[in-house]
Amino acid sequence: MRRLQFWFEFASTYSYVAAFRVERVAGAAGVTVDWKPFLLGPIFRDQGWNDSPFNVYPAKGRYMWRDMERLCAAEGLPLKRPSQFPRNGLIAARVATLEEAAPWRAEFARRIYAANFGDDRDIGDPVLVGSVLGSLGLPAAEILEAAHIRENKERLRLQTEEAVRLGIFGAPTFIVDGELFWGNDRLEQAVAWREHS
Amino acid sequence: MRRLQFWFEFASTYSYVAAFRVERVAGAAGVTVDWKPFLLGPIFRDQGWNDSPFNVYPAKGRYMWRDMERLCAAEGLPLKRPSQFPRNGLIAARVATLEEAAPWRAEFARRIYAANFGDDRDIGDPVLVGSVLGSLGLPAAEILEAAHIRENKERLRLQTEEAVRLGIFGAPTFIVDGELFWGNDRLEQAVAWREHS
Repeated sequence: MRRLQFWFEFASTYSYVAAFRVERVAGAAGVTVDWKPFLLGPIFRDQGWNDSPFNVYPAKGRYMWRDMERLCAAEGLPLKRPSQFPRNGLIAARVATLEEAAPWRAEFARRIYAANFGDDRDIGDPVLVGSVLGSLGLPAAEILEAAHIRENKERLRLQTEEAVRLGIFGAPTFIVDGELFWGNDRLEQAVAWREHS
Repeated sequence: MRRLQFWFEFASTYSYVAAFRVERVAGAAGVTVDWKPFLLGPIFRDQGWNDSPFNVYPAKGRYMWRDMERLCAAEGLPLKRPSQFPRNGLIAARVATLEEAAPWRAEFARRIYAANFGDDRDIGDPVLVGSVLGSLGLPAAEILEAAHIRENKERLRLQTEEAVRLGIFGAPTFIVDGELFWGNDRLEQAVAWREHS
């Protein structure tokens, strides 16, 4: 069974679109998706940015929001431009990093994305994250507590370090057989990838 | 007749791939291509970069060269990683800006790109630019002289200012009916674009 790693960051707009496409596109090709949460903040800071590049470079930001309107319209996804951007995805990323999240990681991630970009909700607020967990029928308080124990925070930190080691510099990134594809618009190419050597 | 503006910079790797795809993809949809040379240098300098972002951000650069290998292989385009990157596309851009270049602008551009990225030639050298003009059966010395008169230099400067005004921040960029699409991988979307309002 071929596998595709889907590296995502909750503050990332194009990761939102990819999160709602990846299972469908990969599934149609018989490819299994591994959802890999990580943090862009430390990676961007290493590049000298203390903010999203879409805020640092306004022309790029204006284009991105217009592009998101077109993409979301084409995908039938709601888009309400967040009143705060980027939002802090740390708590949600810690929840998604939990080992026990395996059965519900993908659906949790989609609901966090929908809250952030479809509904302009503050995903940095633990109450919002808890309500998303509750909507999945999960014990929110227990999971939030587990997400904040040291081993799990360390897990997310290591996963972000692994992203850097793999050459990841933005989100979403797809990896198939060690081959890296950056951007929602490269999902189809990633799924179709086969080593030609 | 629908028209697509193809904004390109001779130092831009993804513009190379787009230059060899744009007439085919647009033509198949009955769309006419307007080739618009401009300079990224002044735009990047306004963003605080004195070099290509692919050099400023090494992880992004490593990905780009690997991605170019994949793309060029898929398109059947030669790729020889230039021993100098980015190369200075100023002279070639001035030539492509000439009004009288209209009948040969596209083919001239493709040959300059092929020299830069397929053959590792220095496109910043007027001798190389002249030899490309000669290969098209054109009077190289005369054209190079015309390219450097003040009105033509000003034309290129104004075209670059127009690019900024249109919201362009990178290359290639496609514009259809005022709608902007950034990146070689958005060519198909640009050609298919119709205002839905």
